[in-house]
Amino acid sequence: MKQLCADIEAIQERHLQAARARLDDLTKPRGSLGRLEDAAARLFAMGGGRFPLVLEPAVLFTVAGDHGVAAQGVSPVPQAVTRQMVRNFLNGGAAINAFCRTGGMDFRVVDAGCAGGPFEAHPLLLDRRLGDGTADMSLGPAMPREVCLRGIEAGISLVGDWAGYACIGAGEMGIANSTSAAALYCALLDVPPESVVGPGAGAAPDMVRRKVEVARRALEVNAALIRADDPVGVLAALGGFETAMLCGIVLGAARARVPVLADGFICGAACAAAVKICPDAAGYVVLSHLSAEPGHSVALGKLFPGQRPLLDLGMRLGEGTGAAAAYPLLRCAAAMYNEMATFAAAGVVL
Amino acid sequence: MKQLCADIEAIQERHLQAARARLDDLTKPRGSLGRLEDAAARLFAMGGGRFPLVLEPAVLFTVAGDHGVAAQGVSPVPQAVTRQMVRNFLNGGAAINAFCRTGGMDFRVVDAGCAGGPFEAHPLLLDRRLGDGTADMSLGPAMPREVCLRGIEAGISLVGDWAGYACIGAGEMGIANSTSAAALYCALLDVPPESVVGPGAGAAPDMVRRKVEVARRALEVNAALIRADDPVGVLAALGGFETAMLCGIVLGAARARVPVLADGFICGAACAAAVKICPDAAGYVVLSHLSAEPGHSVALGKLFPGQRPLLDLGMRLGEGTGAAAAYPLLRCAAAMYNEMATFAAAGVVL
Repeated sequence: MKQLCADIEAIQERHLQAARARLDDLTKPRGSLGRLEDAAARLFAMGGGRFPLVLEPAVLFTVAGDHGVAAQGVSPVPQAVTRQMVRNFLNGGAAINAFCRTGGMDFRVVDAGCAGGPFEAHPLLLDRRLGDGTADMSLGPAMPREVCLRGIEAGISLVGDWAGYACIGAGEMGIANSTSAAALYCALLDVPPESVVGPGAGAAPDMVRRKVEVARRALEVNAALIRADDPVGVLAALGGFETAMLCGIVLGAARARVPVLADGFICGAACAAAVKICPDAAGYVVLSHLSAEPGHSVALGKLFPGQRPLLDLGMRLGEGTGAAAAYPLLRCAAAMYNEMATFAAAGVVL
Repeated sequence: MKQLCADIEAIQERHLQAARARLDDLTKPRGSLGRLEDAAARLFAMGGGRFPLVLEPAVLFTVAGDHGVAAQGVSPVPQAVTRQMVRNFLNGGAAINAFCRTGGMDFRVVDAGCAGGPFEAHPLLLDRRLGDGTADMSLGPAMPREVCLRGIEAGISLVGDWAGYACIGAGEMGIANSTSAAALYCALLDVPPESVVGPGAGAAPDMVRRKVEVARRALEVNAALIRADDPVGVLAALGGFETAMLCGIVLGAARARVPVLADGFICGAACAAAVKICPDAAGYVVLSHLSAEPGHSVALGKLFPGQRPLLDLGMRLGEGTGAAAAYPLLRCAAAMYNEMATFAAAGVVL
């Protein structure tokens, strides 16, 4: 992990400034494309100053895993749905399939460890199983530290194996993972459970209270493993197989200097772990959307102060749908940067 | 105009309800795609219940015109820039070109009446000139009523001539048109100039105060023409050639039951006129983005209460850039509605 962090270069202020200078020279009032200009400047810095900006081809990974804590009744949806939805992804019938087709992203499902054993082989499926669902974090650590490390490394390798992609989308599927993500936020960002636990896939108020209780118990029972200087330990105690792998995807993208479009509430927790492991990775994360899950804005405010996600559409589906929906906006930002005429070239005189 | 209004059918509640029923049967938690679900339901209703939803091919019209009120020093940008930017559009070097190419929208520039005479012929240019810029609205009506009617009809015909497009994007270019649009909002929505006048392309505070003053003068000098029961008269007194034509485009799209993606502050004023002329046209307007121009949210709150634009990126460029940036989101909404599996078909049991 140390070598990896050494390999991740922070995006540089001089590249941001050079990008701003170019943006101010393009035929539009200064700053008039708002946050798309910020996005373009960051893309330029992520690429280390390479021109033109390249975002194609892009791939979205929907990483799926099951959670032992589902046994605590923290989701209105039965655990079997993780598996059913993976089949739906493979058959092309889920929202994320429709969004990726529309936006022109390639799509792969990563089985990080769904309950019920391996899936039959499928061209869209990458088998990276770490187990048959995690253990119940409210009774002890969700997974051993070495399994968590294996998950992070698998995520890093995913990006490595898929070299040639210029943009990575990150999404997830896993019944009960909003409780796990909330506990991760508590431990990594030092916020109370009440501020980050929410309805997830649709829990009623009673169940939300139960989720708070379960998250608190998980924090207590794993207290010895939760240390500010050990984000991997926190991720092992409270995370999911998919969260560990998504953390690795973020780190791998940062190492490859490639933007990673992070989906919503769950992916945010994976980003939190990645940024705690290697703060310089933050520069490669593009926040795609603000989830309707109330804790997301709390967590993002702590994790990426001053940044706002590109979209705010009241979405709370996961799968990577926010990332896929935001990808065309990122392409607009890049096209604007690459293709617009300068004032001088266009003969426009302000 | 009466016949036109009779030809525009309001979108129907029963279609919205049928769409909601289908959306709730697709493999996702109910309502979890947020405002993209609202958009899909509205698209279904706009089409009168036709399935599948169709949004391709799409075209974006950037309608350009000049404003006599520019002589009052209400823009930091000289009037000649309208013409220079039209050339930039035709050469493919503006932001709107980059966005349309990225999102897969066809693009045409409509000359509604730029100062300086007709442009040389160009495949992307539609000559619909109503004059060589409007008169100064702070001294009298911007245009005669019959010219305004001709502009509205030209806009309606644009959509008619271009039958075969399943989605229309609407944008504009015209130095000083934010002052004209603000005056239109005041007269059509009964709001004070201070609440809708803003920096536009980048006016400093002194110039913003001047814009308020000029808008107020325009409202006073044209008081006799500003009647709640005569939106065409208001549009003639305070509008621009491009605003009149955009008003017609909105009405034409509504008559053709085709969604019209309205850009920001200026297009909103054209929508206000269209909705005052024919209230049922409102159902066919998709609000693409919230402009950074502060008056936009004031105006939309009055005009489309309860609706929020798809994007809120701090953009304030115009040209149709918000509409083009939002088009892929609308395509996501349609793809979700058309392509997702139902719970029964996917074997997903909640």
